[in-house]
Amino acid sequence: MGLLKYSKELVQKYANLTRTVNEEFINIHPLQRGGMLTPEALKALIDFGDGYSVCDNCLKGRIDQIENPPVVDFLKDLARFLNIDNAMVTAAARESKRLVMDVLSKKYPKRKIVIIDSLAHYSTYLAIEANHLKVKEVPNSGYPEFSIYLEGYEKVIKEVKSEKGELPLLILLTHVDYKYGNYNDPKPIGELCQEYGIPFLLNAAYSGGILPIDCKKNFIDFISCSGHKSMAASGPIGILGFNEKYQDDIMRHSTIQGNLTSRSFPNKICSFLGCPPVYGAPLITLMASFPRVVKRAQEEIAKEEAKKANYVIENIKNIKETKVLGKLPKIHPLTNVETLGFHEVAKTHPRKGFFLREEFKEKGIIGLLPGISKEMKFNTYGLTWPQVKYFTEVFISIAKKHDLV
Amino acid sequence: MGLLKYSKELVQKYANLTRTVNEEFINIHPLQRGGMLTPEALKALIDFGDGYSVCDNCLKGRIDQIENPPVVDFLKDLARFLNIDNAMVTAAARESKRLVMDVLSKKYPKRKIVIIDSLAHYSTYLAIEANHLKVKEVPNSGYPEFSIYLEGYEKVIKEVKSEKGELPLLILLTHVDYKYGNYNDPKPIGELCQEYGIPFLLNAAYSGGILPIDCKKNFIDFISCSGHKSMAASGPIGILGFNEKYQDDIMRHSTIQGNLTSRSFPNKICSFLGCPPVYGAPLITLMASFPRVVKRAQEEIAKEEAKKANYVIENIKNIKETKVLGKLPKIHPLTNVETLGFHEVAKTHPRKGFFLREEFKEKGIIGLLPGISKEMKFNTYGLTWPQVKYFTEVFISIAKKHDLV
Repeated sequence: MGLLKYSKELVQKYANLTRTVNEEFINIHPLQRGGMLTPEALKALIDFGDGYSVCDNCLKGRIDQIENPPVVDFLKDLARFLNIDNAMVTAAARESKRLVMDVLSKKYPKRKIVIIDSLAHYSTYLAIEANHLKVKEVPNSGYPEFSIYLEGYEKVIKEVKSEKGELPLLILLTHVDYKYGNYNDPKPIGELCQEYGIPFLLNAAYSGGILPIDCKKNFIDFISCSGHKSMAASGPIGILGFNEKYQDDIMRHSTIQGNLTSRSFPNKICSFLGCPPVYGAPLITLMASFPRVVKRAQEEIAKEEAKKANYVIENIKNIKETKVLGKLPKIHPLTNVETLGFHEVAKTHPRKGFFLREEFKEKGIIGLLPGISKEMKFNTYGLTWPQVKYFTEVFISIAKKHDLV
Repeated sequence: MGLLKYSKELVQKYANLTRTVNEEFINIHPLQRGGMLTPEALKALIDFGDGYSVCDNCLKGRIDQIENPPVVDFLKDLARFLNIDNAMVTAAARESKRLVMDVLSKKYPKRKIVIIDSLAHYSTYLAIEANHLKVKEVPNSGYPEFSIYLEGYEKVIKEVKSEKGELPLLILLTHVDYKYGNYNDPKPIGELCQEYGIPFLLNAAYSGGILPIDCKKNFIDFISCSGHKSMAASGPIGILGFNEKYQDDIMRHSTIQGNLTSRSFPNKICSFLGCPPVYGAPLITLMASFPRVVKRAQEEIAKEEAKKANYVIENIKNIKETKVLGKLPKIHPLTNVETLGFHEVAKTHPRKGFFLREEFKEKGIIGLLPGISKEMKFNTYGLTWPQVKYFTEVFISIAKKHDLV
C-alpha cells in the first residue's frame, strides 16, 4: 500500500472538509436556492446517511416497490403533484432526458432529430449526443431578453418533416432556463406536439418544485425534474414523469439470460440497471421535503417568490451600465444581470474579476460565481424579505463604493 | 394543485421518516457494513447536505477539476490507492461497468461478447444487456463452495474466438461476489487478458475499500468500486479506475454543436453528460472517509476483519442442518449460511420466514434480509470483537430455543 506512507498527509487533506455556507451567510447561488434542505430533510439525511439505508426493508429487490419507507406511495404522490400518469426517480434530471431519448430511439428508430429551445441546458445537448441523435434549435430573440420564439417550433417541425421525411423524435422545451431564468409556457408546444403526434418533454429542472406544473393540462408526455436543484433534496436525484403510453418503454424489464446458469432478472428494470442510484440520502431527503415542496410550488407562494427577485431588480436597475437580462417581470427568481460597470472596475482592480464576489462575501453574502464581474447571476428563492432587502442594500452599497450610483 | 387538499396527509406520511438502525442496534446487513459512515463523513454529510454543495467554488464547469474542496487531488489519490493510472467518480459501480462496455463497444464495434464469472452481480448482466452485448459465463463448482473455475476463462476465450472469429470485448471478474462473498484472485485472469490482448475489468464493488487491491500488479485495465458499499460513503457513488490507454475513450469530450447558435461544450465529458451525478454529499463523504479507508484496506486489518467472520462460522457450524456456503476460510467477511434447520421452524411458525429476523431484532441485531429463513447472509465487517461475540451468542441462543443445538 504505497499510499499508507502518506496517511498523515491524507488525514490533513480530507479530514476537515468544511463549507463556508452556513447560517451566518446569505447564499444567493443561482443553482442552490431551490435545493436547500428543509429541516425535515436534514433530519432524514442524518438518519439515512449510510449507503443503502432506504433498502433496509426491501422485499422485492426494486427501489420503486419499497413500502417502508413509503417509496411506492411517494412515487404515486409525485405523479399526482405533477399531474402525470407515472413518476420514477433517476440519478439526475439529465439522466431522465437521456433515458427518454434512448427509449424513443428504440421505439422510433428512423427518427433522428430532437428539437429544442436555444437556451437549453448543456446537458440537454449532451443527452442528444450520447444517443447519437441530431439537434435542431428553435431561436430566441437575443439580447437583452433572449425570449424563445415558441412559434418557431412549428416551423422547425415542418423543416424536419420535409428534409428527412420523418417526424422529429422528440420536442423538448426548457420550462425555465439556466442562464436567464426565462419562463416558457408549455401549453402551445404541448398542443403542437398533440397536433403533429410528436412526444413532448418538458425539462423542469429549474421549475419543478418551484412553480406549479400541470402536465396533463399542457399535453406533456415526459417531464424531467431535479431534486437537488429545485425540490429541497440532498441528491443528486432526478425525477422522470411519464405518460402511461410509455410505461413499458421506460420500465423495460430485463430479458438477458446466463448461457450456462440460465440466470435471469425479469423483475429488474433494464433502463435503470436495476435500481436508479438514489438508494439512501438522495431519495429520503426528497421524500422528507416533499410536503413542503408541494405547498411552496403553489401559485400564491410562487408569485410571492417572484416578487422578491423583481424587488431587487427594481432597486438595482439604475446602477450605471447595469442591465437585467431575460424577460421581465420575473416569474422564476433566477436572475442574470449584465454588470458592465463592475466589469470596468475589475479591469484595474488588484483582485480582477474576483473582487465582486469578495466584496459581497465581506458583507455576508455568498454564492456569486467566482471570477466573473461582467454578468452576475443570483437567485432570491426562499430568502426572507429582510434578507432580500439586505442583499439589495449591499448590492447598491458596493456600486456606490465604486462610483456606479 | 390537487395534492394541496392532502397536505396534512402528506406531512403525516413523509415528515417523520426515521430508521430503526441506530447505535442501540448491531447491524449485520450484508450490503451495509462497508458503507457505514465514518465520523468524518457524517460531519461532512451535514455540512455539504445541500444540492451542488461541492460546486461552491467550481471554476471550470467540471467536477473533476474542482480544487476546493480538493477533488483534483482526491482523484489522483484514489488512483494511487488502487494503483491504476486514472480514477473518476460515477453514479454507482454499475454505471462504471456500463460505461466501460459502452466505450469498448465504440472502440471495437465487431466484438460483442463479454465473458464474466457465473456469480457476477445482476447489474453486470444488465450492463451487458443495456449495451446490446452478449454474455458468456465461466462456470463455478456449485454447492456448497460455488468456487469460480478461474481456469475456465481461457476455455471460454478460445470458444468465442473460434465461434465468432473475434476476441471477446471484455473479460470481467467479480473480485468478491454478492452472494457467497467468495474472493477471486485477479492475477491469473489479468495475465490471461494480457496474453490474449483483451481488456480486463475487475468488479470490486464489494472489495475496493475493504481488501487491498493493486491493479498494475494484476494487469487490471478497469476497476469498478462502490463508495456506498465498501468505502464508507453516503453515496450512491461509484468509482471507475482505468489505464491511461483508455483515457480518451472514458473522458470523451463533447463534440455536438447547436445548428443555429453554434453552442458547443468541448470541455464537457460526454460519457458523464457533463458531470457524474455525485455533486454534494456522495462525493464529499467519500473524500472525508478516504484516509480511514486507505488504512482499513491494508492487509493487516483486512485479515483481522476476516477473522471475525471465521470466528462466527467456527461457532455456529454445528447448529443442526446449518452449512456455510462459499469458500472457507473467509477472506471477505460477507457470509452466506444455509439454515435448513431454521427453515423447518419457519414452516410451522406463525410469523413464517420472518421469525428469524424478528428474533434477532429482539436481541438488538438487525440487517437480516426479511422473510428469508433458508439462507442467512451476514457481514461482520467493522464490528468490534465484543459485538462479534454477542452476535455469535445470539445466533446460538436462537438455535437452542428451537432445539437446533
